[in-house]
Amino acid sequence: MNRERLEQLLIRVRSGKVSVTAAMEQLRALPFEDLGFASLDHHRSIRQGFPEVIFCEGKTPAQIRGIAASLLKHHRPFLATRASPQVAAHIKRIDRRAVYHELARIVAVRDPKRRLEGHVLVITAGTSDVPVAEEARITAEVMGSRVETLYDVGVAGIHRLLGRHRQLTDARVIVVVAGMDGVLPSVVGGLVDCPVVAVPTSRGYGASFNGLAALLTMLNSCAAGVGVMNIDNGFGAGCLAHRINGLGITRQ
Amino acid sequence: MNRERLEQLLIRVRSGKVSVTAAMEQLRALPFEDLGFASLDHHRSIRQGFPEVIFCEGKTPAQIRGIAASLLKHHRPFLATRASPQVAAHIKRIDRRAVYHELARIVAVRDPKRRLEGHVLVITAGTSDVPVAEEARITAEVMGSRVETLYDVGVAGIHRLLGRHRQLTDARVIVVVAGMDGVLPSVVGGLVDCPVVAVPTSRGYGASFNGLAALLTMLNSCAAGVGVMNIDNGFGAGCLAHRINGLGITRQ
Amino acid sequence: MNRERLEQLLIRVRSGKVSVTAAMEQLRALPFEDLGFASLDHHRSIRQGFPEVIFCEGKTPAQIRGIAASLLKHHRPFLATRASPQVAAHIKRIDRRAVYHELARIVAVRDPKRRLEGHVLVITAGTSDVPVAEEARITAEVMGSRVETLYDVGVAGIHRLLGRHRQLTDARVIVVVAGMDGVLPSVVGGLVDCPVVAVPTSRGYGASFNGLAALLTMLNSCAAGVGVMNIDNGFGAGCLAHRINGLGITRQ
Amino acid sequence: MNRERLEQLLIRVRSGKVSVTAAMEQLRALPFEDLGFASLDHHRSIRQGFPEVIFCEGKTPAQIRGIAASLLKHHRPFLATRASPQVAAHIKRIDRRAVYHELARIVAVRDPKRRLEGHVLVITAGTSDVPVAEEARITAEVMGSRVETLYDVGVAGIHRLLGRHRQLTDARVIVVVAGMDGVLPSVVGGLVDCPVVAVPTSRGYGASFNGLAALLTMLNSCAAGVGVMNIDNGFGAGCLAHRINGLGITRQ
Amino acid sequence: MNRERLEQLLIRVRSGKVSVTAAMEQLRALPFEDLGFASLDHHRSIRQGFPEVIFCEGKTPAQIRGIAASLLKHHRPFLATRASPQVAAHIKRIDRRAVYHELARIVAVRDPKRRLEGHVLVITAGTSDVPVAEEARITAEVMGSRVETLYDVGVAGIHRLLGRHRQLTDARVIVVVAGMDGVLPSVVGGLVDCPVVAVPTSRGYGASFNGLAALLTMLNSCAAGVGVMNIDNGFGAGCLAHRINGLGITRQ
Amino acid sequence: MNRERLEQLLIRVRSGKVSVTAAMEQLRALPFEDLGFASLDHHRSIRQGFPEVIFCEGKTPAQIRGIAASLLKHHRPFLATRASPQVAAHIKRIDRRAVYHELARIVAVRDPKRRLEGHVLVITAGTSDVPVAEEARITAEVMGSRVETLYDVGVAGIHRLLGRHRQLTDARVIVVVAGMDGVLPSVVGGLVDCPVVAVPTSRGYGASFNGLAALLTMLNSCAAGVGVMNIDNGFGAGCLAHRINGLGITRQ
Amino acid sequence: MNRERLEQLLIRVRSGKVSVTAAMEQLRALPFEDLGFASLDHHRSIRQGFPEVIFCEGKTPAQIRGIAASLLKHHRPFLATRASPQVAAHIKRIDRRAVYHELARIVAVRDPKRRLEGHVLVITAGTSDVPVAEEARITAEVMGSRVETLYDVGVAGIHRLLGRHRQLTDARVIVVVAGMDGVLPSVVGGLVDCPVVAVPTSRGYGASFNGLAALLTMLNSCAAGVGVMNIDNGFGAGCLAHRINGLGITRQ
Amino acid sequence: MNRERLEQLLIRVRSGKVSVTAAMEQLRALPFEDLGFASLDHHRSIRQGFPEVIFCEGKTPAQIRGIAASLLKHHRPFLATRASPQVAAHIKRIDRRAVYHELARIVAVRDPKRRLEGHVLVITAGTSDVPVAEEARITAEVMGSRVETLYDVGVAGIHRLLGRHRQLTDARVIVVVAGMDGVLPSVVGGLVDCPVVAVPTSRGYGASFNGLAALLTMLNSCAAGVGVMNIDNGFGAGCLAHRINGLGITRQ
Repeated sequence: MNRERLEQLLIRVRSGKVSVTAAMEQLRALPFEDLGFASLDHHRSIRQGFPEVIFCEGKTPAQIRGIAASLLKHHRPFLATRASPQVAAHIKRIDRRAVYHELARIVAVRDPKRRLEGHVLVITAGTSDVPVAEEARITAEVMGSRVETLYDVGVAGIHRLLGRHRQLTDARVIVVVAGMDGVLPSVVGGLVDCPVVAVPTSRGYGASFNGLAALLTMLNSCAAGVGVMNIDNGFGAGCLAHRINGLGITRQ
Repeated sequence: MNRERLEQLLIRVRSGKVSVTAAMEQLRALPFEDLGFASLDHHRSIRQGFPEVIFCEGKTPAQIRGIAASLLKHHRPFLATRASPQVAAHIKRIDRRAVYHELARIVAVRDPKRRLEGHVLVITAGTSDVPVAEEARITAEVMGSRVETLYDVGVAGIHRLLGRHRQLTDARVIVVVAGMDGVLPSVVGGLVDCPVVAVPTSRGYGASFNGLAALLTMLNSCAAGVGVMNIDNGFGAGCLAHRINGLGITRQ
Repeated sequence: MNRERLEQLLIRVRSGKVSVTAAMEQLRALPFEDLGFASLDHHRSIRQGFPEVIFCEGKTPAQIRGIAASLLKHHRPFLATRASPQVAAHIKRIDRRAVYHELARIVAVRDPKRRLEGHVLVITAGTSDVPVAEEARITAEVMGSRVETLYDVGVAGIHRLLGRHRQLTDARVIVVVAGMDGVLPSVVGGLVDCPVVAVPTSRGYGASFNGLAALLTMLNSCAAGVGVMNIDNGFGAGCLAHRINGLGITRQ
Repeated sequence: MNRERLEQLLIRVRSGKVSVTAAMEQLRALPFEDLGFASLDHHRSIRQGFPEVIFCEGKTPAQIRGIAASLLKHHRPFLATRASPQVAAHIKRIDRRAVYHELARIVAVRDPKRRLEGHVLVITAGTSDVPVAEEARITAEVMGSRVETLYDVGVAGIHRLLGRHRQLTDARVIVVVAGMDGVLPSVVGGLVDCPVVAVPTSRGYGASFNGLAALLTMLNSCAAGVGVMNIDNGFGAGCLAHRINGLGITRQ
Repeated sequence: MNRERLEQLLIRVRSGKVSVTAAMEQLRALPFEDLGFASLDHHRSIRQGFPEVIFCEGKTPAQIRGIAASLLKHHRPFLATRASPQVAAHIKRIDRRAVYHELARIVAVRDPKRRLEGHVLVITAGTSDVPVAEEARITAEVMGSRVETLYDVGVAGIHRLLGRHRQLTDARVIVVVAGMDGVLPSVVGGLVDCPVVAVPTSRGYGASFNGLAALLTMLNSCAAGVGVMNIDNGFGAGCLAHRINGLGITRQ
Repeated sequence: MNRERLEQLLIRVRSGKVSVTAAMEQLRALPFEDLGFASLDHHRSIRQGFPEVIFCEGKTPAQIRGIAASLLKHHRPFLATRASPQVAAHIKRIDRRAVYHELARIVAVRDPKRRLEGHVLVITAGTSDVPVAEEARITAEVMGSRVETLYDVGVAGIHRLLGRHRQLTDARVIVVVAGMDGVLPSVVGGLVDCPVVAVPTSRGYGASFNGLAALLTMLNSCAAGVGVMNIDNGFGAGCLAHRINGLGITRQ
Repeated sequence: MNRERLEQLLIRVRSGKVSVTAAMEQLRALPFEDLGFASLDHHRSIRQGFPEVIFCEGKTPAQIRGIAASLLKHHRPFLATRASPQVAAHIKRIDRRAVYHELARIVAVRDPKRRLEGHVLVITAGTSDVPVAEEARITAEVMGSRVETLYDVGVAGIHRLLGRHRQLTDARVIVVVAGMDGVLPSVVGGLVDCPVVAVPTSRGYGASFNGLAALLTMLNSCAAGVGVMNIDNGFGAGCLAHRINGLGITRQ
Repeated sequence: MNRERLEQLLIRVRSGKVSVTAAMEQLRALPFEDLGFASLDHHRSIRQGFPEVIFCEGKTPAQIRGIAASLLKHHRPFLATRASPQVAAHIKRIDRRAVYHELARIVAVRDPKRRLEGHVLVITAGTSDVPVAEEARITAEVMGSRVETLYDVGVAGIHRLLGRHRQLTDARVIVVVAGMDGVLPSVVGGLVDCPVVAVPTSRGYGASFNGLAALLTMLNSCAAGVGVMNIDNGFGAGCLAHRINGLGITRQ
């Protein structure tokens, strides 16, 4: 209920056209109804700069097809995460520009008008962390960020990281993906002054507890300026990195 | 060991002034020695734009006094977190411009030349979350960010939050502090398109497990673009928010 | 042992027909024996208004067939939860009115004489939560409650929920099903004044720990009036919602 | 602003005593701004039938005094939970009708016009569970429910419970409070057909883990129709029991 | 009412000294009502061979005094566990034969007619485990078992244990109390063929998690024939050991 | 090293036949060597009254065949637990008297000379707990105990249990097997005065955490005299029950 | 580039066969760039005395082939852990001297010039712990340590261990591998004065929580001088044992 | 009885000054009985090269005094850990050479004949980790190791560590003490080729869970050759480091 509608209601109360009881009923919900936008899809795009994204896990193929068809009719770019090759095939039938990134398990339709801007750097500690890193990379790119990568530079051979010091300091925001002991974000966070997004992966064995160890390491990082994502949440990391990267470019 | 020194070494090997064995010993550590900067304090300020911060918990008064004296001789601004009133008194004796923020438990000496810029918004779900929020606010301000606050707007009365929609969309980065069920960052994250820094607090009882419940809620947030801090880590949140806020202003 | 039998025993002790030792043995168990009802099945229906329900997981097909045949001989309605299509086929052979609800994994035989009464509302945060919600819905309906549903209204787009404010306030009891961060019950609980039954689902990844994160969120909900069920326990939620819904209708 | 005051305002608009503009100003800020007190949720009384309740833990005496004074100016009844005797003394100075329930740690001002209706039964397993049970009892009573209690009837001597079978079946809703192994709700839930609200307490030692064991027991209860509250959350249990009890009485 | 008093009552019924009606009145209330004391389980002495025991933690002094006075009027022996010196003083005022075992934190009144029979052996790994062991010893003794002890024989010096092999094989049942790594029950269980009752203690530091490590060690013991108690639950261990020890002596 | 050998050593030191250094080396290990029994297999049977049992999980078929062949050459009875049908077939080829108990997953060769004695009662809460209960039953029987069973008497219909009160009080020791909330041992423990062995099962879903909930319930049982086994450890329970049952029969 | 090749390079610089500039180019990229293979840590062989080891889990066959080919071109010995038979076949095609140790899941190419020195003893509690023990054994041997083994000597029959006292005291370092209750390292640690490396295995069931119980036991060991590895981490144990064993032999 | 006294006894047997019978009597009771002090492990000095150490936590002052007096009569050196100043004062009264190390909470009497040998390096990440590091240092020194320290070199400023590369490579064994994220051992382990002993500390807040986060980080370390101790277990680390350091020096 916006200002005009509220004014109308009170005028109609005054004139006797609406009873006090009926007015009370409408006013009871007042804090909520003034947001009454019609459609989910369009509004998300306006509100957050990017349309709804399909998280495919736990959805049936039919559900995904339905949502994808509806989104693709109205929006560019398009993103579906945790997609199997089968799901990708379904979506490609709806829109043949759709591309399947197998390692990242993402189906994407890019918006050709979006130029890749800024500078996001995605780092991994090991080779096995790459799928999560790729999910972050594709996500940020499809949203409009320019992304570079630096994979397999864990602290077991820390000179590999230190040797790339220039790449680290050039980035506007760095996504660090690591499993097992999850120490890489702490080391990176101590070397740079830009925001760091840390993503634990479920890679490891024994007392890694499917990423819990790496998650706790990152939450307790002694380095300041590190924000942590859920385990294996490359999509969220890409999304946050893009929002950070966008500051000073698209919204300044 | 930089390029010049390496060249010198090889020339001396060639000329027989350095034995192969001695050269091998030096080369063994090659990836590390070229970073040999003299002093911890000065370099942090150059590397990360802010000098070392004292985390007072678990340090003796004598240790804190020593570190503070050394830092205050060389740097502005100055920040000591988790400081008791006693610690604050000690530091004020070293530098009388030091101010103690009791709720935030911070002792700070601001740098008068830093103008507060950008726009960080700090939100809390409840009144008891305010100390952690204040730690974030003071930290970000001392580092040079302009900060606004919006306290006690938890979802039990969600219209309190929705009514401030404009304040939410005006911010460049939002810090959301919440204990108990920790749901506020999810709701805020669904309303805005700027980066959100979520801070769980240890406030709550029973199965809140001293903030673990809120932490898990935030890590699993369905809203994209939310980075999570450790429980009660207002300092880290302020620090990350400041780094994000600085993009497009100081480093563009 | 009721009053009459106790009196008889003592008279027989007095008359010497029962020895002191034998009487002592009988009296030792006195608090328990007066409940000696014959049959499990019939009594549950009398005691709790609904016959025993078969929880199929962990039972062999032969066991389920046996229990189902015995129950179906004496009772309507009939409910078997967590049933596979195979189990459903077995039961349909016993009673061809049995209906298999695939999404809810329930086999049900309704009692045509039960009118659906009252008003239970079942809400989900996401599409993947629907199977658990359907288990709750079918359960409550078969027991005799009228149920409405409102699916996929999570807080990532909170206006979807707020726009249905009328549906929320019309219900007598609301079941809220949510995985991942599990924040929806907190938001719903802050909007209505009827009882809320919260059901965490195992949907999510990483640090959702198969529903633990959502469970903790719900237990710590700042909103008053929320009772929590076990993870994925749609049956329990439907059952509790039906009992609440029945107050003021069938038992007043 | 309660229903009466809102009705008065509308009547005065209708009669012309208040202009539409002035009414609009009051209504725009209706939920929280009209008292100049930042985030108190005065709208809650209209929305949920009971004004905001003060949870005293983690708030300073000054904060509690301020909130209490504001609430007591506008609302009856009034409830402050987890209150120390000192807090109680502060509140009594604001309103001398305030009563301190020491065992329940509640300060309450009852609304003399509310008749106690329906029938809530509060049960405990042991003597040490009584404080949490009393918190539930006072809460439900102040909100308007008639409450009976049955304390110290744990299953170590199950005949104590079975001997009160009539009391169990007479209740409209039963709150069961238990620590240690937390088995009482399962047993009660198997005996009755009304809704059961289970509250684990932190009572116990060793592997009770401050109530976690009892909480898990209750969540896994084999008895259907049991909703679980957070550990020691007597307030929430009283609140939910009152809402359930109210169905068929106040809202039918 | 113990076995003797019940037998007396029945004999007097048989002899006509007590009427059937009067006996019925006494028996009707036998389990708990005859003392007008709400929930004390006086029937327990008949049912389980030992009257109710007071667990003092979490009870007020007044509650303990009331329960103790009621129990001491009717029963011997008497046991109150986790009792502070203050509680002991209160109970001694009620019955001056009460003895306070400070290390075990038990107040006991022994039944002089009970001879100590059988052979329970209580072992500890370290000196700090002794209080829990003493709680077990006093409990078993007051209940009527003969108990020997063997303290501080942990596996860090395993010859201390092996040197007492004869004492181990002589016992009918062995209680093994251990904190930290909790390995002693596994070693003892591999040496003997009698039942072993394992009690983890909260002694330890770091990742002992207040006894959780020792508890898990004992639950996973490779040695067969080991039953585990809750952390620090010396009372339960003494109780179970006494019941086992009694087989073949009092009940054969 | 026994007394004779020690004496010999010292005599040889005195006579100079053994040097001081050599003697010191031998004496260094003195506390351990006097136990130097030759053979694993035979000694276990002497020491603990039952030969080694094969736990098949995690062993290769070849390993199991080898151990079984060696044991069956020397011992009766024989027991192999957690055995698949394939393993059973292997063992039957070695000894055709071997019987496979499929539900219990045990391969057993009984000793025809062992009479079943005493009285162990095995109870389950539900149908799904039966496999674990059967593992306990077969184990105790093969070891020589007479076992009765009472299955599916959980507290959801507590009269089923109470109606069998006589069976409960007749047993010398009771094994109670329960999953989900695991409350049955608490109820049984409150009814009887014999030792109770509680076995949690991994049956359940959601927050049962594969038996953890039931395990905690049992460890925290308010009923005294309950010893707890590891999750699903029917073998251990049968073993402990047999040892308890044997007291007063075979060893008195 | 190993020590020998580095030495050769320097000798050739000295003799003028390689120019300073050419040597500088090779040395600048020494740690990782000289092979054009992104992040392989060829410097590790110089820094830590052993080249990089391939942890195969979570890597694709193509990735493993690529890394193996690169390593095998430059280094001896070679080690790939957690290798499936398929992976082993791939590597054998690259270098036919590669041997697959199936139980240990290791592919190794030994360096024929390395003599096995010192004395590492590897012990297991049970038969199922052998795979992890073999991973430790092969690792230590390939690195150059002489290894003996002592398998299946758990404390259920502790004389098996005590009877081998001489073997224990002869070792320079002992690796103890144990699952279930994990008590063996505590017992071994109390018998010897050399360093003990404890490795928990995931063997066990129920509350062993995939090795967590054994891990906690070992961390809390009362025996001094025990260092703990991650669950199932035989490779790490072999590596640490080799480094310890090497002291006083290769580096003295 | 230490090695010297045993040697003396045997020499006197050889020379006929002590009879075989008298020697046998002394040797029979050698491990613990000869001092009439129940369970002190005087044999440990022979078996493990160092007498029993008193862990003071959880022991009464009287117990500590008694054990200390007995140990100090027979052994040098002497070590009591986790000692309060009061305990230290008690021990100084028994032996005035005792020194109290306040930060390490250790009371020690050194053996002047032990020369400090080898080279142990103790490193901490932060200032607050120093007490645990000091416990390790004093322990290793009193046992006979030469120890150097390098405190406050955490990865937030990694150049502090890299700049000390020479110190790292010079050590025979390195103890790394770290709280919070616990990443330092991973970094150190990647730089050196000697054994690393990692000690997590309880320093930290929020989701550090009193050292659990650091413990998990260390257990999952990607660097090979790292053995982990219990949280805050400086004593154990010092002990293990000394044993490792001793290889190749005292036992070669």
